[in-house]
Amino acid sequence: MNLRIVAYLIGWVLKIEAVAMLIPGIVAMIYGENTWYWFLICAVVSGTAGVFLSRKKNRKGNFYAREGYAGTALSWILMSVVGALPFFLSGRIPHYMDALFEIVSGFTTTGASVLSDVESLGRGLLFWRSFSHWLGGMGVLVLLLAILPFSGGGNHMVIMKAESPGPQVSKLVPRVRETAIVLYGIYTVLTVIMIITYLISGMNFFDAVCIAFGTAGTGGFCVRNDGMASYNNVSIVFAIFWMLVFGVNFNIYYLILKRKWKDALRSEELRAYLSIFLTAAVIMTIVTFIAIYSKEIGGAKGFFLSLRDSAFTAASIQTTTGFSTADFSHWPIVCRWIILLLMVFGASAGSTGGGVKVARIVLLLKEAKSELHYLIHPNAVKPIKFEGKVVEKTVLRSLNSYVVIYLVILILSVFLVSLDPASKDFETAYSAVLATYNNIGPGLSIVSPLLNYGSFNVLTKLVLIFDMIAGRLELLPMLALFNPTIWKRKFM
Amino acid sequence: MNLRIVAYLIGWVLKIEAVAMLIPGIVAMIYGENTWYWFLICAVVSGTAGVFLSRKKNRKGNFYAREGYAGTALSWILMSVVGALPFFLSGRIPHYMDALFEIVSGFTTTGASVLSDVESLGRGLLFWRSFSHWLGGMGVLVLLLAILPFSGGGNHMVIMKAESPGPQVSKLVPRVRETAIVLYGIYTVLTVIMIITYLISGMNFFDAVCIAFGTAGTGGFCVRNDGMASYNNVSIVFAIFWMLVFGVNFNIYYLILKRKWKDALRSEELRAYLSIFLTAAVIMTIVTFIAIYSKEIGGAKGFFLSLRDSAFTAASIQTTTGFSTADFSHWPIVCRWIILLLMVFGASAGSTGGGVKVARIVLLLKEAKSELHYLIHPNAVKPIKFEGKVVEKTVLRSLNSYVVIYLVILILSVFLVSLDPASKDFETAYSAVLATYNNIGPGLSIVSPLLNYGSFNVLTKLVLIFDMIAGRLELLPMLALFNPTIWKRKFM
Repeated sequence: MNLRIVAYLIGWVLKIEAVAMLIPGIVAMIYGENTWYWFLICAVVSGTAGVFLSRKKNRKGNFYAREGYAGTALSWILMSVVGALPFFLSGRIPHYMDALFEIVSGFTTTGASVLSDVESLGRGLLFWRSFSHWLGGMGVLVLLLAILPFSGGGNHMVIMKAESPGPQVSKLVPRVRETAIVLYGIYTVLTVIMIITYLISGMNFFDAVCIAFGTAGTGGFCVRNDGMASYNNVSIVFAIFWMLVFGVNFNIYYLILKRKWKDALRSEELRAYLSIFLTAAVIMTIVTFIAIYSKEIGGAKGFFLSLRDSAFTAASIQTTTGFSTADFSHWPIVCRWIILLLMVFGASAGSTGGGVKVARIVLLLKEAKSELHYLIHPNAVKPIKFEGKVVEKTVLRSLNSYVVIYLVILILSVFLVSLDPASKDFETAYSAVLATYNNIGPGLSIVSPLLNYGSFNVLTKLVLIFDMIAGRLELLPMLALFNPTIWKRKFM
Repeated sequence: MNLRIVAYLIGWVLKIEAVAMLIPGIVAMIYGENTWYWFLICAVVSGTAGVFLSRKKNRKGNFYAREGYAGTALSWILMSVVGALPFFLSGRIPHYMDALFEIVSGFTTTGASVLSDVESLGRGLLFWRSFSHWLGGMGVLVLLLAILPFSGGGNHMVIMKAESPGPQVSKLVPRVRETAIVLYGIYTVLTVIMIITYLISGMNFFDAVCIAFGTAGTGGFCVRNDGMASYNNVSIVFAIFWMLVFGVNFNIYYLILKRKWKDALRSEELRAYLSIFLTAAVIMTIVTFIAIYSKEIGGAKGFFLSLRDSAFTAASIQTTTGFSTADFSHWPIVCRWIILLLMVFGASAGSTGGGVKVARIVLLLKEAKSELHYLIHPNAVKPIKFEGKVVEKTVLRSLNSYVVIYLVILILSVFLVSLDPASKDFETAYSAVLATYNNIGPGLSIVSPLLNYGSFNVLTKLVLIFDMIAGRLELLPMLALFNPTIWKRKFM
């Protein structure tokens, strides 16, 4: 591996983080909180380290797969290690591991928290937490690609691949840099519009901005101890809408910008994504409505409330945001099963959401259907098509391996988490893993929406930190770090 | 589909079943039970129907994939519909759906029961229950291939493929018929030796035969209300040994017969199979031993007992037999997680056990490893090898589709079962599905070893019946029935 080019990459990421940390510092200052100087100190440290690491650029600035994967994974780890410092140094999160868990949960847009009293963090740290969702949602390296004119041969697509979700990454425009700029442009504009809608719905400015960051990144951190409960129905309906918007492949928005409405609406993934949402929302509405009326579960009666909470939960879980208006951990088990499935399915490829991604689910089903057809009619071979194009063999091969690796990490994680004495029941162990691995946040039982991840031990927190990053980067970059051949030094 | 050739096949299966049902009839007579005439009546009905269906043989006796898959699935369904009659007609199982569940559980070697008081069935019906395990273990159609000289082009391999477990079926000897004879020969000889060891260990003759049938088919039906609890430690140790023996690929025994010891011991699947067993047994021994000593769970103290119960449980679940010496549903959750994984992994391909099969697990891991290697070193392509041979692309493709179809059926089944009011908790819903789908028998919570499947409603029982057959026939034959193109009539 060419370590110099990786150091250069990490250096730039730290420089971006330094600038990013100044913003919550300013917020803290505005609200008269003394945490501002911790942000300043961390920004200076991060910036200095960044300048040092990126001081020499290799003239042959090529990224090969190795450098792309390992560099992306290392960037995310270092970014988190530094990003956790303001929580820890300010003493608001006394254990460093908890601070790390919190910021990894932020950057990976998971939204799982170790805190029971978030309001005690103060506005500056709350802003940083939510802002990390926004940065991690579209990706810091994609931002880097947008602002930095990489010279050299320019095989930078691999970084984009490593950080962007989905089975295949398509460049919207021929050059990687312009693609990154377009993506961040759409992302920023949508976020600004969202903030305005939240303000109109009655949220105060600070809440509107933070909740918008959490929605845009499909993160899920809130700024109040009661989560979303204190916002009105208009805000809730807006949140459902915006969560769904950010779970859509951003290519669709680019097509709409180019006025290719037909192409946008014809998208197979978009249709599957919305069908899954509608199916889940309808079933959960009916089941919870009946369960509340028959007093099987508690909760406020009324069809609108069941519809609101079911649609909100379906959107929140499917887009892997993780906001909650109801404690779904007490819903009938058929709802909990749907919630676990939504966690795994996840949002669309090329969105800010996590999970396996709807595109992969659709492709897997098509693959299975094609094989069934082949077995019964061995002489009729049809290629698999997706979004109007024939799917390449290499994409299918990666897809199948993705599934296996996904399951292996899932199995080992649940095994390790179930060793924790805090995993009092099964639902805790596997829902904690599914909720972090797929970047959702809240799970069932002791990690339900009303509770948090604070009671786990250090090993479990480390496992879940790994899962969050592996889930956000779609497995390969994190696994690449464990490949010994990647660490062979090569400075040319 | 050529319906005539399918009818011929089903006819022969029913004729075999008629003969098979005479044996429990004789047993009932010997023990002076009046159920014998129900067996006689059912045998006559089954035999008559069989003669009628198989009266005309198509001269072009070729099986294509269609006929092979659909014929196998239909044979299993009809065989079960008829096999359930003695339970129902004798009044010992008052509801026909329960009787059907019981016999499907028997033929598919699942061993899940709807009965709380099995001893009340009487010896004849108990024998039929256990004998169905033995017949279903190696497969009725494989038996048919062994006794029936199919004329014609002889593409009968597809029947063998449809009924035999594993990603690839290898003919031990060039002709399908001889392969079937060799398999049944080994199966019978091993069963006889096992009966002798059980007798030596102190079981009475009836128990020894029935428990041997349950072990050989990796079924799991017992003949006493307290399951295996009344047998001594020698019997238990023999049972562990024999369960493991029948979870091995029968090719290994053929190699041993041919004195190819080296080839037999070099088998990758055998090594993986034993490694999984040892790992699971060791971890569960340690965890249960500690848990019992720290009084976290109940149970008899002592290292030997923990070792015995853990090894027995690991062997019983991995080979998908489903006998139990301890109520593992109360073990610490890490053990329950291991048990669920063992349920899915299952036994070896080409054994009488169920589950996904160790060979598939090994192949999937190899596939993922190869892809990881490819991503980091795109220029080094290595073919995937298994058991010393390069794995064909078509095998890998089927494997990947198998995984997807397996998961789809699993997801839908859990969804349907979780709608049942009897599914009081999550563990009930998914462990009931996993335990039937992988042909194990007992699961967790209300389907734990001490309880049974009797409390589920008819829909759930139908779903689980489908799962048992789909699991036993490895998905494709059952799915083929749902393919409309297969039902196009074709009598030539």
